[in-house]
Amino acid sequence: MTQATPTAALGPVLVIGTGLIGTSIALALVRAGVQVFLRDQDSHQLQTAMQMAAGTELNGRAPDVVVVAVPPRAAPQVLAAASKEFPDATITDVTSVKSGILRQALFAGADSSRLVGGHPMAGREVSGAAGARADLFDDRLWILTPTLETATEHVQRAQLLVATCGALSVEMAASEHDVAVALVSHAPQVVSSALAAQLLPAKEMHIAVAGQGLRDMTRIASSDSDLWLDILSENAGPVSEVLSGVVFELQEVLHALQELAAGDRDHQEAIDATLRAGAKGRMRIPGKHGNPDSPYREVAVMVADEPGELARLFIAAGEAGINLEDVRIEHVLGRPSGRVELAVKPEAADPLVEALVQRGFDVRGVDS
Amino acid sequence: MTQATPTAALGPVLVIGTGLIGTSIALALVRAGVQVFLRDQDSHQLQTAMQMAAGTELNGRAPDVVVVAVPPRAAPQVLAAASKEFPDATITDVTSVKSGILRQALFAGADSSRLVGGHPMAGREVSGAAGARADLFDDRLWILTPTLETATEHVQRAQLLVATCGALSVEMAASEHDVAVALVSHAPQVVSSALAAQLLPAKEMHIAVAGQGLRDMTRIASSDSDLWLDILSENAGPVSEVLSGVVFELQEVLHALQELAAGDRDHQEAIDATLRAGAKGRMRIPGKHGNPDSPYREVAVMVADEPGELARLFIAAGEAGINLEDVRIEHVLGRPSGRVELAVKPEAADPLVEALVQRGFDVRGVDS
Repeated sequence: MTQATPTAALGPVLVIGTGLIGTSIALALVRAGVQVFLRDQDSHQLQTAMQMAAGTELNGRAPDVVVVAVPPRAAPQVLAAASKEFPDATITDVTSVKSGILRQALFAGADSSRLVGGHPMAGREVSGAAGARADLFDDRLWILTPTLETATEHVQRAQLLVATCGALSVEMAASEHDVAVALVSHAPQVVSSALAAQLLPAKEMHIAVAGQGLRDMTRIASSDSDLWLDILSENAGPVSEVLSGVVFELQEVLHALQELAAGDRDHQEAIDATLRAGAKGRMRIPGKHGNPDSPYREVAVMVADEPGELARLFIAAGEAGINLEDVRIEHVLGRPSGRVELAVKPEAADPLVEALVQRGFDVRGVDS
Repeated sequence: MTQATPTAALGPVLVIGTGLIGTSIALALVRAGVQVFLRDQDSHQLQTAMQMAAGTELNGRAPDVVVVAVPPRAAPQVLAAASKEFPDATITDVTSVKSGILRQALFAGADSSRLVGGHPMAGREVSGAAGARADLFDDRLWILTPTLETATEHVQRAQLLVATCGALSVEMAASEHDVAVALVSHAPQVVSSALAAQLLPAKEMHIAVAGQGLRDMTRIASSDSDLWLDILSENAGPVSEVLSGVVFELQEVLHALQELAAGDRDHQEAIDATLRAGAKGRMRIPGKHGNPDSPYREVAVMVADEPGELARLFIAAGEAGINLEDVRIEHVLGRPSGRVELAVKPEAADPLVEALVQRGFDVRGVDS
């Protein structure tokens, strides 16, 4: 996999806030040969970041870009102060909610012509400089939200920063960003948590029969509660819009189910409507390569639960010149399942099955 | 992977209803050398099943077991009729909701001492005999729900049927089953649909930034709406119990978010409570081997999006004697991502990283 190679060189960058994200940005920039300055009021984090060779203290040279990577509550003031201290620099941040932060930063005196909101869509389940990684943003999306008055030059510098960190920049208005992440990330987080919360009082035997569906639906419920409390609070408006829609749908179904439970069959229509709307909505999610979900075909194979067995399977696919689009290993109660589902482009399904059968694999059918 | 090998031989089995499930059961039994009789009022399905060598018509020999694999609405009457026609046979079914079906079957005259409800937890996105597969139940759960009066001998025969089909039997009361599947399967289906329905009116640009979280949360929303309408309607009571809990949690959060959006910070507690309950609830889901989720460590590796590259990766793991517990291939907007996350037991993470680095792989860190 090749990284985008920036054609123009990025001038010095000052990173304010040497936590996980700030230090990771610094490391990514150092990796690309950019001069990086670091600042943090927490001298311990700053020391750690410097020991990781993420950058040095300011040496009198003015930064071209200032990246404010402090907690959301502190970001507006720090953005405004940086804007005043470095009157020629592009000023950007990394908070996962944008409108409120930028509005407050402008109110506090940030220069709107040099301000570009930023949201690198990557993270880890750890915090602090010690957890930072130069590759954290490789191949990740990084949304940029210029203000209406941001000059082209500063938008371009922010794009160069993103590309230099190995990420893919996508530009949108701050309010668009907040509505988008409410829909695709923040509301789903709440829904996952609300569903997973139902497992708390449940009998162990009932949970024991859980399949992949429940696992997928509740995976993100195990995310950091503190972090999510902050994110949801900062994006309360757009998230509540999406959640209102979810609650409305659920109440329609709930009402219909209660009537059905009471013996009234006339209420199936509301359930049907939600199921169909969901199936159609799901189809709108882009697939692996940015296209709508391709109609991959899935080939099921049983393999022994032993070291090297998956290798043997993938060797067979590779030898046949077939690229695997996705891999799903199924989990079954009580004992290891050796069922592996391989997703491939439709035209590759038959050659894959042939190649696997030839090599003695236990192919268990093909779903279209 | 070895299948459980039944020690006792199963006598003749009559399968009534030669759709996908019935014919798959018949094929699985034939595979194990069991004599199978088939019956269906749809002569086309019956012909198809017979042409697939799934069984023959009744030849005068009485079946030991009758499997009723007809649609839920017809199941009670067919169970009762089979119970009368074959006074020594174990009578079982395959519907995914149990209490109502069994109650109605007993009311219609089925013999409670020989009735064992069944629910093989497997399916395909196709229907009819033509889609049947002998391996459909291999390593899948198959829940058995005897009545309070079912004789041990008939429970054992049902267990033998399940084992002979390659599945794992789990026994519980019918009402327990219905509550369990409402929790782990039926309510999550509705929640997934309700969330995915929010994508229908959304802007394409907003959906475009969707990550793995939304994909996981909405995957099951693309299931067959007709089938789910029937399932939800049959299990309306237990599903509405679970959904009530989900709606309650969501409304608490929604109310808090609306207050926050209006500037009142006092309401964070309700959001925090839901997030924490969700994280705790999620931890109760059993892991791959029937144990609580093991704290697997994830090793991230970048690989080229080309045939054979995954093979090279798995060969390296296999050569190092390391078993991969799970594999996740990440999808990123706009271009193929070569980021692969390998889940391994904690003690295997460092050896895996070492083995991969030695072989020149681009290892991108380890999450605990």
